Amino acid sequence: MGLALRLAKKGVGKTSPNPAVGAVIVKNGEVIGSGWHRKAGGPHAEIEALRSAKGGVKGATLYVTLEPCVHYGRTPPCVDAVISAGIKRVLIGAKDPNPLVAGKGIKKLKASGLEVESGVLEAGCRAINRPFEKFITTKTPFVTLKLASTLDGRIAIASGESRWITSEASRKAVHRLRAEADAVMVGVNTLLRDDPELTVRKVRGKDPLKAVLDSSFKTPFGAKVFNNPGRLVIFTGHGASAAKVARARALGARVVPVPSKKAGLDIRRVLKELGRLEVSSLLVEGGGTLAASLVRAGLVDRFVFFISPMLIGGDGRPSIGALGLRRLEAAPRLKDVIVKRSGCDILIEGAPA
Amino acid sequence: MGLALRLAKKGVGKTSPNPAVGAVIVKNGEVIGSGWHRKAGGPHAEIEALRSAKGGVKGATLYVTLEPCVHYGRTPPCVDAVISAGIKRVLIGAKDPNPLVAGKGIKKLKASGLEVESGVLEAGCRAINRPFEKFITTKTPFVTLKLASTLDGRIAIASGESRWITSEASRKAVHRLRAEADAVMVGVNTLLRDDPELTVRKVRGKDPLKAVLDSSFKTPFGAKVFNNPGRLVIFTGHGASAAKVARARALGARVVPVPSKKAGLDIRRVLKELGRLEVSSLLVEGGGTLAASLVRAGLVDRFVFFISPMLIGGDGRPSIGALGLRRLEAAPRLKDVIVKRSGCDILIEGAPA
Repeated sequence: MGLALRLAKKGVGKTSPNPAVGAVIVKNGEVIGSGWHRKAGGPHAEIEALRSAKGGVKGATLYVTLEPCVHYGRTPPCVDAVISAGIKRVLIGAKDPNPLVAGKGIKKLKASGLEVESGVLEAGCRAINRPFEKFITTKTPFVTLKLASTLDGRIAIASGESRWITSEASRKAVHRLRAEADAVMVGVNTLLRDDPELTVRKVRGKDPLKAVLDSSFKTPFGAKVFNNPGRLVIFTGHGASAAKVARARALGARVVPVPSKKAGLDIRRVLKELGRLEVSSLLVEGGGTLAASLVRAGLVDRFVFFISPMLIGGDGRPSIGALGLRRLEAAPRLKDVIVKRSGCDILIEGAPA
Repeated sequence: MGLALRLAKKGVGKTSPNPAVGAVIVKNGEVIGSGWHRKAGGPHAEIEALRSAKGGVKGATLYVTLEPCVHYGRTPPCVDAVISAGIKRVLIGAKDPNPLVAGKGIKKLKASGLEVESGVLEAGCRAINRPFEKFITTKTPFVTLKLASTLDGRIAIASGESRWITSEASRKAVHRLRAEADAVMVGVNTLLRDDPELTVRKVRGKDPLKAVLDSSFKTPFGAKVFNNPGRLVIFTGHGASAAKVARARALGARVVPVPSKKAGLDIRRVLKELGRLEVSSLLVEGGGTLAASLVRAGLVDRFVFFISPMLIGGDGRPSIGALGLRRLEAAPRLKDVIVKRSGCDILIEGAPA
């Protein structure tokens, strides 16, 4: 299962809206086939493994990180293929997180006389598909909040200058995160200040959808996000200039009006709309106001902090806007914290506790 | 020399104003004696090693992390003892950083016919005595700035509540830093907010001198720092209430008037005064204003950040006050960065780049 999991990881970020899955076929103590799901629409991991298998698979054991599917999607159900191939035993990492189908694959395999065991290396097998799990169960994307700040929590000096706080290695890592996400989102202030392209350049990978949170449509048409308007979604308030909205749409961008709340656009609604666009994983790249509204609403699923060993001071721009805490006890905490080096920066990852 | 260095480290924080030194005596490939300098006034490492040596030391090799002394201080010069003991060869880690005596020990040993080699494991041997080196060359203390903040660089929520942002392990580590320092300093705002004792409690070690930066003498006489007024130094402006100054002095505290500058007390002058009190290493525990004035003046020798995996938001109190940067390029950077875990916190150490 360790091997199957390693194979599955090769698909992470490439299979959306499908989960990343790996499979290994073992017969007489030897690996005779293996494979992983490479991209949505392509063959599932089990099929890849069956096809690659050398010699007959009759009586063999299949290790697969996720419960095989029973439904017709873009490809036929894997359960049938596994059964008809003559596999004798199936070891499963995690159950299908989709509540509508969970357990059905296992049931059908058992009904056909196969030995089935699930929960093998479950934590690891589940962890790689958190975004998929979140999306399939909530229809809203898994939200990664990425912040690049100084040791004293600043993302820019007072003038707004922020290039570059973090090292080349960290910027590259951000492009990797972008390539793994279905969409990248920034607040309009960050857009106005940094004019980011929000594309994948420093690594190989597909460009994510670009989402801008812009309640009063201040995004200039000359902004770099308009370089490829077909991949741009602007969330605006209902009061945004109709002329601008029309022009953006004429250019091919999607403009989605969203109700406003006191603190800005209704961020839950924004996530719901992204879910409708099949965005299962969202990378939020700042700035401080957007970060604060996500944190306040408890909508962050994973934090990724790149911390540069430099200091900007209290007159710089904060990485996270006001949270309005009245007691320290109420401060959001991270768990499962991972600390790594990223060039000369420190990378700190965690989930909300 | 590795062994000598490990022995020397046992004395770190206990030998001030002397350096920490370790020594090992080797004869016929065997360690026959070893020792380290335990505290000022006690025997130096070389003497400890000579005394502990089993069998004759005639013809033996002495490994010592720091150049042996040639001058009479609280103890007679080690060079004479080394020569008269019949040591044949001396390997030295670092030269004496005191510019007035550097090289004299080596010269005298050579003049007496001993083989001498210096610069063995020099970097390590120097590193343990940075505070001593700074003090002996500048007569001002080596300044360690310790900050305990959240991931977003906050040391308290808006109300001032800051207990506890960091874990028990980090608080213990802070007590260890205190025990290694000759003095601990806070700004008066931190004193008023947290009423710290500034003593060593969570580990074994001596209490440092307590220094408070308090331009208009706002420190209440009921503050915990007054529990042991004989170990308290208050730096005030020249305009501070004469009655308060007199009362503090009557209680046994030292009150040192210091000229004020636009940004507060002249911090260079404060360090000079601490140097006069034989403070060779100073631990600054905040808050943000004091941290900023030290950083702005380039007076920090070592940064120690305890970062708790929690978030407070932009309305919390910043770990470092305004630095007034006009260009990002001018932002102070850290080098030789060390990253460790400290309980559930992240410990980031570095020197100014």
